[in-house]
Amino acid sequence: MDLKRIINSIQNFEGVKRKKAIENVTNSLKEVYNITNNVVVPFGDDSSAIDVDGENLILIAADGIWGKLIEVDPYWAGYCSILVNVNDIAAMGAKPIAMVNTLSLNDEKIGDKILKGIIDGCHKFNVPMVGGHLHPDADFNSLDVSIVGIAKKNHILTSGGAKLGDKVLVAIDLDGRQHPKFKLNWDTTYHKDPKLVQDQIKVMEKIAKLDLINSCKDISNPGVLGTLEMLLEASSLGAIVNLEKIPKSPDIGWDDWLKIYPGAAFVLTANQDNVEKIIEIFEEYSLNTAVVGEIIEDKKLFLDYNGEREVLFDQKINPVIGSFD
Amino acid sequence: MDLKRIINSIQNFEGVKRKKAIENVTNSLKEVYNITNNVVVPFGDDSSAIDVDGENLILIAADGIWGKLIEVDPYWAGYCSILVNVNDIAAMGAKPIAMVNTLSLNDEKIGDKILKGIIDGCHKFNVPMVGGHLHPDADFNSLDVSIVGIAKKNHILTSGGAKLGDKVLVAIDLDGRQHPKFKLNWDTTYHKDPKLVQDQIKVMEKIAKLDLINSCKDISNPGVLGTLEMLLEASSLGAIVNLEKIPKSPDIGWDDWLKIYPGAAFVLTANQDNVEKIIEIFEEYSLNTAVVGEIIEDKKLFLDYNGEREVLFDQKINPVIGSFD
Repeated sequence: MDLKRIINSIQNFEGVKRKKAIENVTNSLKEVYNITNNVVVPFGDDSSAIDVDGENLILIAADGIWGKLIEVDPYWAGYCSILVNVNDIAAMGAKPIAMVNTLSLNDEKIGDKILKGIIDGCHKFNVPMVGGHLHPDADFNSLDVSIVGIAKKNHILTSGGAKLGDKVLVAIDLDGRQHPKFKLNWDTTYHKDPKLVQDQIKVMEKIAKLDLINSCKDISNPGVLGTLEMLLEASSLGAIVNLEKIPKSPDIGWDDWLKIYPGAAFVLTANQDNVEKIIEIFEEYSLNTAVVGEIIEDKKLFLDYNGEREVLFDQKINPVIGSFD
Repeated sequence: MDLKRIINSIQNFEGVKRKKAIENVTNSLKEVYNITNNVVVPFGDDSSAIDVDGENLILIAADGIWGKLIEVDPYWAGYCSILVNVNDIAAMGAKPIAMVNTLSLNDEKIGDKILKGIIDGCHKFNVPMVGGHLHPDADFNSLDVSIVGIAKKNHILTSGGAKLGDKVLVAIDLDGRQHPKFKLNWDTTYHKDPKLVQDQIKVMEKIAKLDLINSCKDISNPGVLGTLEMLLEASSLGAIVNLEKIPKSPDIGWDDWLKIYPGAAFVLTANQDNVEKIIEIFEEYSLNTAVVGEIIEDKKLFLDYNGEREVLFDQKINPVIGSFD
């Protein structure tokens, strides 16, 4: 395997490249994200958080489901709409409360499959779907889900909290399979006992309450390293990562693995003193966890492999999103 | 004007007819709307409400913006996405907290106009847009917005709380204009002082805390009477309404007026003893309010006009949505 080829492949990965367009939206909405002066976590994190009484936060997140997913497997799209939303709340160390959906349909049968997936997802993660909006006469099929959660203000995990010298950890459930129709979908929940799946969500709340972590982000479309880069951009810091330290399924090559969207996985940073405890807690819930690198001041993500070192992302030259400030 | 023609026109109005498809979705999702046993208001209301601690409710609602609105005037679609969501929370007697959006774009320029509308809407209603999801490479342009709000458990307004013998009231801001591009859009907020617009939202919270109202619903796409019928279906009751009692702009004919989507308007029911006080409070905020009828046991919506009486909706034969139970 060649490090330069891997770097190039990730930089040109659609899951990474399509995030760039967000910058325009967040820049536009900057003037209204905190007009009420109580928004403690705005755009750029897995969820946004609003301080309602000085002690309790309400979290809210939205995920639009990728059109191709609905086209190829509407049932799976419905199921994933629950998974991604629940993980957005979990990554903040918060408790998911309820979801709503907006469904646009030009084909009722596809809608029925989406709904079946939503129902199974709700049961799996034990988060209710409580309402929504329907366009029964749309020109297309689409599914957007939003989720609300709660957390205590002094125990919230954000992607912007990394500290210089922090260890970078990756926690990922290796007990999974590539989805038969989507090789970049690392499914770790569908065939798993709901109790364990729900415990994997709750463990983030537990970790948050123990104050072991400085920053955290749910690994999603941009893959392990694209997600880490988003965390680094939010924290205005860089990192050096040793590729081979990233927990990986032995059945999958690096090129796919680094682009994979996992069912349960987080990238996080913590002080060296807490690393052992964090790994112990995560490993209890089938989340294979390892220190993969360290936070540095230079706003670049360096990748080490086989004695070589290359820059994967440079916030000045090729950020995934770019700075929110 | 002929009563039978009016009845026929409302029954066949697209804004009424397209609600029927919701029944399939709510029936499907029935098994997961309350798997956590803390959902106090599920589907079928303006917002859903979840009991988080026995005292405080978190409310969540979603609205997908009608494709034709985006096509004809993307700026107005963005503005309306805020208006409809804020009203969904207000109608419950709750306080809007924050919103998220999912934006799918095939044309960046349309996206910019939508965002401009969102920004102006946030300023007008003073509710922040705190996050969201972007599909920068969609085959279509679409906008979905979700909102979260808070309320006290013992002061929540629902559409299912009407009581036999209640007076039916309609509160609607008559100081408005038909939108130049959408004659069924009764705009009462765009040219109005933000303070008054925000007070029209807050007045619902005030009314809720005074326990003056038994049921309430935000007047939306199905118009005044279509919305009232949804309230009656949620309450499993009927009503007799005197058409001429409905507050109406003198510049607009009944046929359009009954289909109009107003910027600030609610249909509600209350005990006769509270009617005077309710009208007094609403009128303070440019909400013209009148008793238009009475709640009855027979699950039909009767319309009186000029000495005639006709059935507009019969829950057994032609409900707008149909019973959730």
